[in-house]
Amino acid sequence: MAHVNAQCRLRNRPVGLPTADDFGYVEEPAPQPADGQFLVRVGHLSIDPAMRSWMNAGRSYVPPVGVGEVMRAAGIGEVVESRHPGHPVGQVVGGVFGVQRYALSDGEGVTPVDLSLGEAPVHLGALGFSGLTAHIGLLDIGRPRPGQTVVVSAAAGSVGSLTGQIAKINGCRAVGIAGGPDKCRFLLEELGFDGAVDYKAGGVRGQVRDLAPDGVDVFFDNVGGDILDDVLTTLAHGARVVISGAVSQYNAERGTRGPANYMQLLVKRATMTGFVVSDHAARFPAARTELSGWLRTGQLKEHTHLVTGGVAAFPEALLGLFAGKNTGKTVLAL
Amino acid sequence: MAHVNAQCRLRNRPVGLPTADDFGYVEEPAPQPADGQFLVRVGHLSIDPAMRSWMNAGRSYVPPVGVGEVMRAAGIGEVVESRHPGHPVGQVVGGVFGVQRYALSDGEGVTPVDLSLGEAPVHLGALGFSGLTAHIGLLDIGRPRPGQTVVVSAAAGSVGSLTGQIAKINGCRAVGIAGGPDKCRFLLEELGFDGAVDYKAGGVRGQVRDLAPDGVDVFFDNVGGDILDDVLTTLAHGARVVISGAVSQYNAERGTRGPANYMQLLVKRATMTGFVVSDHAARFPAARTELSGWLRTGQLKEHTHLVTGGVAAFPEALLGLFAGKNTGKTVLAL
Repeated sequence: MAHVNAQCRLRNRPVGLPTADDFGYVEEPAPQPADGQFLVRVGHLSIDPAMRSWMNAGRSYVPPVGVGEVMRAAGIGEVVESRHPGHPVGQVVGGVFGVQRYALSDGEGVTPVDLSLGEAPVHLGALGFSGLTAHIGLLDIGRPRPGQTVVVSAAAGSVGSLTGQIAKINGCRAVGIAGGPDKCRFLLEELGFDGAVDYKAGGVRGQVRDLAPDGVDVFFDNVGGDILDDVLTTLAHGARVVISGAVSQYNAERGTRGPANYMQLLVKRATMTGFVVSDHAARFPAARTELSGWLRTGQLKEHTHLVTGGVAAFPEALLGLFAGKNTGKTVLAL
Repeated sequence: MAHVNAQCRLRNRPVGLPTADDFGYVEEPAPQPADGQFLVRVGHLSIDPAMRSWMNAGRSYVPPVGVGEVMRAAGIGEVVESRHPGHPVGQVVGGVFGVQRYALSDGEGVTPVDLSLGEAPVHLGALGFSGLTAHIGLLDIGRPRPGQTVVVSAAAGSVGSLTGQIAKINGCRAVGIAGGPDKCRFLLEELGFDGAVDYKAGGVRGQVRDLAPDGVDVFFDNVGGDILDDVLTTLAHGARVVISGAVSQYNAERGTRGPANYMQLLVKRATMTGFVVSDHAARFPAARTELSGWLRTGQLKEHTHLVTGGVAAFPEALLGLFAGKNTGKTVLAL
């Protein structure tokens, strides 16, 4: 009895903001595992801004998704058929399964998931790439010292909300940049940030200066564009800028805009470093242990924005990220 | 008997390229040293692109020169009057004496110069800030390993010509970017670079790719603008970009242009670091010892472009830098 596999495939390479038409919905029989393979029924998918960059033709930090291919996505699911000794039926696993209900795997890049540490969405958020990006990007690349000021952009998003909290846990002052008073309140009241900058209110530079009068020691940037330019003017001597993303630029139709104030790196003897979490796999176990400990004690709070509607709801879930309405980690339930 | 002091003072803050009118020439009696002071007759001045940035109102990595003040410049001269026990008459000294024939000093930031190691221009070039910038910027910040490819912009200039040679001495491949076939020939034939890119011929990106097929491990940037953007697309995995200057941007009338390709830092897991040599004073003695050793053995070649005409010739000497006609270190003889 073949399972019916629902898939979301990339139909066109979008210019600017993607639309639902850029994706095609397909149903076909799920494949049968050969020797050494297994079939995963995917339950939850991680929805990330970087997905937009994977839709462009040029090679980013990973190769692009091909037109006609299943859209790439990290997910969690259960093994439902198996001819692989390491992944028996019933095992819960995480991997880059794509936006589809059933994924065939030979086990490469697939890891068992321990649901006793948290529900599936948590393994895509605080215990997944979002948490690892925040932890390793902030502590290994940003290297803030206790008492220093950490500023994070897209602070109400999955990585940003964790980054600010991890800064606090490590004795730093945390200032978040987010859009609108509701998100700013969320940062201050729910997540315990020391300061919140509402970029929609304008004057980001002045707001950051007021909240970081001695300068910004670490800027963890997820957005690029004007916000990066503004924060570059507020750096402390010897600051570290961690480039984790550039969500403001992913939909740019005329190419990425560079930070006009990059010479502040010289003025402030600062460093700007590009960071991709998958390079740091050796650090994952230790970082995950620390993250799950903080989750257990309640020092770290995970917020999930759960989108229902299955594979067909993927375009809507992705576009929701760029509309900037959500807080925390966006997860699509299949 | 008072000495007549010729001075070049900043008259206006220029917009765009400076002109001779932005400076005023003044003659007045040289001051008399008080207790603890001495008077230096300046013989040679270092002419540097960064001088242009000191003429702007905003604080760069040093405070701006005030309108009406003597233009800032590093120089070498001889003590001609002294009421300072550490700096007797006849001593040859280096310091930031300004564009003037006579400078009063209390000794702060002034060091004796050993002319047995080289003539005065060499102490402003390979043994001065140019050499120290090349040495410390390349080896401490760029950290190239033997066999790696180092690319340097403004490669026929004072810092660039030394940077490429120091890369070679340390077992690296050196590729220089310069303007025009004559400068490129100078790099290859006089300085022993492995490759030369003529940016005036266009297609910088393709030229660099051809000369660095495995990618650029260290980019030592003196110019910014299009060249920085082009080289960012040719970085090797884990590359280091050293921002030492941005000569293409110093005269920009509408603010600095940022590197549109900065997200290549993420794609290539690369780092971009601003570097100001004066922060690294503790490293100067060791670097100078190494530089003077290389000069002595002939491994390192110093090229000086000497401008005569004294203090009054300063505007012409500075503008010559931006006309891009000179190779090596520009020094003004007073």
